[in-house]
Amino acid sequence: MLNIEIISLVLKNRLNEKRYLHSLGVMKTAEELAKIYDAPVEKAIIAGLVHDCAKNLNSNQMLKYAFKFDILLDGVTNHQIQLLHGHIGAELAKNEFGINDIDILNAIRFHTTGRENMSTLEKIIFLADFIEPNRAFPGVDKLRNMALFNLDKATFMALNHTIKHVITKGELLHVSTVHARNFLLEQLI
Amino acid sequence: MLNIEIISLVLKNRLNEKRYLHSLGVMKTAEELAKIYDAPVEKAIIAGLVHDCAKNLNSNQMLKYAFKFDILLDGVTNHQIQLLHGHIGAELAKNEFGINDIDILNAIRFHTTGRENMSTLEKIIFLADFIEPNRAFPGVDKLRNMALFNLDKATFMALNHTIKHVITKGELLHVSTVHARNFLLEQLI
Repeated sequence: MLNIEIISLVLKNRLNEKRYLHSLGVMKTAEELAKIYDAPVEKAIIAGLVHDCAKNLNSNQMLKYAFKFDILLDGVTNHQIQLLHGHIGAELAKNEFGINDIDILNAIRFHTTGRENMSTLEKIIFLADFIEPNRAFPGVDKLRNMALFNLDKATFMALNHTIKHVITKGELLHVSTVHARNFLLEQLI
Repeated sequence: MLNIEIISLVLKNRLNEKRYLHSLGVMKTAEELAKIYDAPVEKAIIAGLVHDCAKNLNSNQMLKYAFKFDILLDGVTNHQIQLLHGHIGAELAKNEFGINDIDILNAIRFHTTGRENMSTLEKIIFLADFIEPNRAFPGVDKLRNMALFNLDKATFMALNHTIKHVITKGELLHVSTVHARNFLLEQLI
């Protein structure tokens, strides 16, 4: 694996400034959450830093990578190719940065849609993406507070927020997000 | 098939008063929508009247009927057995009332969750269930107005309302509802 300094340099060069600062924010928040929830801190730092490495690709580039990496499009990603940036990011993390840890790769892969039965690291990255210091939306402070006390509940709240936001914006809703959310609800009740 | 007078009598006897009046409301609204959208009016009347015939069963009765009619429980209905009242209602409509029309039965079956690629009658019953005259919730008038002009868009709005409502209430969200909504969105854009 490339060291974090080099990965940071590549990302700084590849992402726009806002996205790069967001990545550093997610890295920092993921580190804090990993300490709270007894998760591997180093993995959280790497996954947080790298999670959006494919975010600034345009649709054509996304399609090319999806083809190259055998990533299947479904009824939703077929229309909203940008949703694939997690999947493509995981492949780039593996191929370009030499990251082979499956939990890190899955945390990158599912950081936007979520999925059923997420690992602790997957929840941490999903949540850190939502609440890192640069994020500002109604309810973010409530989410930040909950993240300090209950990872499942905070992730559940973040998934609910995603679902409502997608509905309000009139975008397609990925069923993985619904499965992620229903699964957590069943754990919580 | 039993005639409508006899079906009404059975339902009046079986459902509580509020539910019976709601059924009459759905019947009336479904009739109006069928006329607007050139759907078979008689089928809309029957489906509207009968759609909630299993609604007042308790959980034990639902489970017994699910077993009797080979209705499979999934990750959601396993926890929220009441969601099966559409499926059980369709079986009761067939077995007790002698209704054999597949479109009527499907309109009853999927009136709560919706499903991908709904028929016109299915949309009419789903929507009539939402906007019949006894319904009162914020936004119902907007939905009633849209129902007069665009069945797909009104059904889409009703599905969005269902999804947000389920999230707000903290209940499990059935993926069929998401598939129904995504499918319509793809038609509309």
